[in-house]
Amino acid sequence: MADKKKMVEAITAMEEDFTKWYTDVVKKAELADYSGVRGCMIVRPYGTALWENIRNDLDARFKALGHENIMMPLFIPESLLQREKDHVEGFAPEVAWVTHGGEEKLQERLCVRPTSETVFCEHYADIIHSYRDLPKLYNQWCSVVRWEKTTRPFLRTMEFYWQEGHTMHETAEEAWAETEQMLNVYADFCEQSLAIPVVKGRKTDKEKFAGAEATYTIEAMMHDGKALQSGTSHYFGDGFAKAFDIQFTGRDNKLQYPHQTSWGMSTRIIGAIIMTHGDDNGLVLPPRVAPTQVVIVPIAMHKEGVLDKATELYERLKSTVRVKLDASDNSPGWKFAEYEMKGVPLRLEIGPKDIENNQCVVVRRDTREKTVVSLDELETVLPALLDAVHDGLYQKALARRESMTYDAHNFEEIKDIADNKPGLIRAMWCGDLECEMRLKDEVGITSRCMPFEQEELDEVCVCCGKKAKKMVYWGKAY
Amino acid sequence: MADKKKMVEAITAMEEDFTKWYTDVVKKAELADYSGVRGCMIVRPYGTALWENIRNDLDARFKALGHENIMMPLFIPESLLQREKDHVEGFAPEVAWVTHGGEEKLQERLCVRPTSETVFCEHYADIIHSYRDLPKLYNQWCSVVRWEKTTRPFLRTMEFYWQEGHTMHETAEEAWAETEQMLNVYADFCEQSLAIPVVKGRKTDKEKFAGAEATYTIEAMMHDGKALQSGTSHYFGDGFAKAFDIQFTGRDNKLQYPHQTSWGMSTRIIGAIIMTHGDDNGLVLPPRVAPTQVVIVPIAMHKEGVLDKATELYERLKSTVRVKLDASDNSPGWKFAEYEMKGVPLRLEIGPKDIENNQCVVVRRDTREKTVVSLDELETVLPALLDAVHDGLYQKALARRESMTYDAHNFEEIKDIADNKPGLIRAMWCGDLECEMRLKDEVGITSRCMPFEQEELDEVCVCCGKKAKKMVYWGKAY
Repeated sequence: MADKKKMVEAITAMEEDFTKWYTDVVKKAELADYSGVRGCMIVRPYGTALWENIRNDLDARFKALGHENIMMPLFIPESLLQREKDHVEGFAPEVAWVTHGGEEKLQERLCVRPTSETVFCEHYADIIHSYRDLPKLYNQWCSVVRWEKTTRPFLRTMEFYWQEGHTMHETAEEAWAETEQMLNVYADFCEQSLAIPVVKGRKTDKEKFAGAEATYTIEAMMHDGKALQSGTSHYFGDGFAKAFDIQFTGRDNKLQYPHQTSWGMSTRIIGAIIMTHGDDNGLVLPPRVAPTQVVIVPIAMHKEGVLDKATELYERLKSTVRVKLDASDNSPGWKFAEYEMKGVPLRLEIGPKDIENNQCVVVRRDTREKTVVSLDELETVLPALLDAVHDGLYQKALARRESMTYDAHNFEEIKDIADNKPGLIRAMWCGDLECEMRLKDEVGITSRCMPFEQEELDEVCVCCGKKAKKMVYWGKAY
Repeated sequence: MADKKKMVEAITAMEEDFTKWYTDVVKKAELADYSGVRGCMIVRPYGTALWENIRNDLDARFKALGHENIMMPLFIPESLLQREKDHVEGFAPEVAWVTHGGEEKLQERLCVRPTSETVFCEHYADIIHSYRDLPKLYNQWCSVVRWEKTTRPFLRTMEFYWQEGHTMHETAEEAWAETEQMLNVYADFCEQSLAIPVVKGRKTDKEKFAGAEATYTIEAMMHDGKALQSGTSHYFGDGFAKAFDIQFTGRDNKLQYPHQTSWGMSTRIIGAIIMTHGDDNGLVLPPRVAPTQVVIVPIAMHKEGVLDKATELYERLKSTVRVKLDASDNSPGWKFAEYEMKGVPLRLEIGPKDIENNQCVVVRRDTREKTVVSLDELETVLPALLDAVHDGLYQKALARRESMTYDAHNFEEIKDIADNKPGLIRAMWCGDLECEMRLKDEVGITSRCMPFEQEELDEVCVCCGKKAKKMVYWGKAY
């Protein structure tokens, strides 16, 4: 095998083949790779560092609201999974079954958790006895497994990483408030940390989580106009509590069932980052979660003083931004392309001329805009530029979503838009499953959500012409 | 069910039944609970917070040395596990097998990872081509599964949490240096962060990791004199590289095999913390990883100004130490017992008299020593007291280990000590498996390690009288 010096290769253009562009970015930016197990990905160091930043940010938001982390078993006995009817129907067809431990055949099969409502409920039955034990605000970070037919890195994998919050409350009101609060945490996180605008709303009954009374969702629009469900928060009522016999003595000294929520965000969100901000040069990372925020590229590195100065800047800036110095013997041009591919928000170039003038050149990844910055002002200018990149990414994504969202007033119109214009469609709905199914089968779109911010576009359903109940976002989705 | 107000119940005394004492502490301090799956524990929020502090501390040490985190698949195909002979023999008897995905029977069984050498090697074969690609310094935080017959929380569970580092190096020397470096990281972490003194050494061939050329270990002594292997670091040479066909072009332009290490520390270390520092009042946590370092207990809370002052202190101290305020309506006595059970290093009592005198009382968990502290000096006194607790715990554990370590010079002596004195035994060994087996079968002790700090206690083996090669620590172990 020849000594292959790594080169930055071109990727497929978005316009040409969006799916291939996506896979190219995942591979060439070294976010993830395929493993020997179908549908299971290797999240490489760069992808893992990104996920760790996402996790730490979300985790701090959860903890600030009083949530505690817990670590639950990976396995769920078959009988436990079966305890709640809708839940088992939703998940049993797509779980991995452990049947043997060592040489020994198990008396009862264990599934690898596809989600953990059942094990949380079993534990809650043990530890919740009085209203004094409530609320329980638990969360866990783990991987879960769902036996998917077709998979794509981050978007749909057999094993994926996520957090799952599971909470128990004294009253239904409290549980509803928690469901809404956690959806807002996800929405704020997407907008403030990932620069991804989202629509908040409620899923239709057809699209809600198996076993939930209501599912709230945030929906983001990708570059190709498709929607991506980016986080969900479920209200369970007391259905699971009844199935698992979780009861507590209330303030009135009577036995009652607690009210439950669960909520999750997964490594899918990395897919959303890629498809919201990326371009034909590769990844574009939102600064607040980027593993490297600023990469220093020395110019004419062999010239005296350049590497010293670059190293001095690196040491100085370490406490202000997440900075990396590339002092490898690759050419500056190679490095430019490499860190564009990896989506590093800012590039700082420093060469002999710059040093003479006590300055450097800072280039934005998103707009390629260059700024000459005095070396004395880096501690204020770099954070400001990172904020500017964040705002720019957010505004660009929002403008795209707005320009690719259409209103439809009748069946012909919705079919015409769905066939010809990628994007989201707003239209009125009567609330019947029949119309939802017809739009799926004949138009090829599904209900993304009933947005919290409702408008009455028409008085009647886009599909059947009967009285409309809700405005719905419809679209194609990942 | 009556409204059960939680009470702090007494635990079994150590002297009476050490095993039961251990289980009581795990349960009553709310570190972990049993789950519905045999041998799988629920790590409760207090235990999870402790593990998170351990993880963050270790993770920072790894990253400071250039290691990167990665997330590898949970499943290993059977054929991949079989690629390295010694490795599969060591692990195949104790893995969980997935045979079905949904309704479908798998063509090839997948095991739930018991450790990940094989999947790392498969990935390394894909990404290592040139000496420029080396070293690879990867680590992952995850859970692994081993089908154990008998289990105990933290000490031996079917599913346990750990980190596993897997590195590849250009030369054998570099890999040996990494093996030793990572053992030192573990030893430093145990001593500096957990206040647990350890013996560093090398495992005998019988006790080394399946597939390794050498296993380094740190061994700690528990309260009952038994040893606990607290972290291991393995040198693999190029055995796995050959089995997995990992080759790179060297500086000499010739194809060669890289040299490999792996190293791990697990939730077992929580068992070590419990059994090193705990006492008859419960857990005693080393301050640097304790989820709560200082608990504020208001005295005569109903009196005017007490709760306000306690809250003010809490807000003030939050940025200096990990502090908790217990303003519940339980009695101060109940709270004292509760936080002693949970091993919180310092208790800060504040009542009306204290407020009058601008002071408070701080009580150490380890010695119960009380100090009256001016409220103006808390920012300096509390960190100093936490350091004093750390040092005290370390010195106490070291003194115990020294007083319970014995030298044996012949077979009779070693049998007598093993039968009558709990602790570690230092004795010379000829290096033959036969003697090691005899000590196991007839004396009931195993070799813990050949310490790096060797002494020649005698010229001959304690067992057979032939020329001795190594001084070995022998003992009973968890």
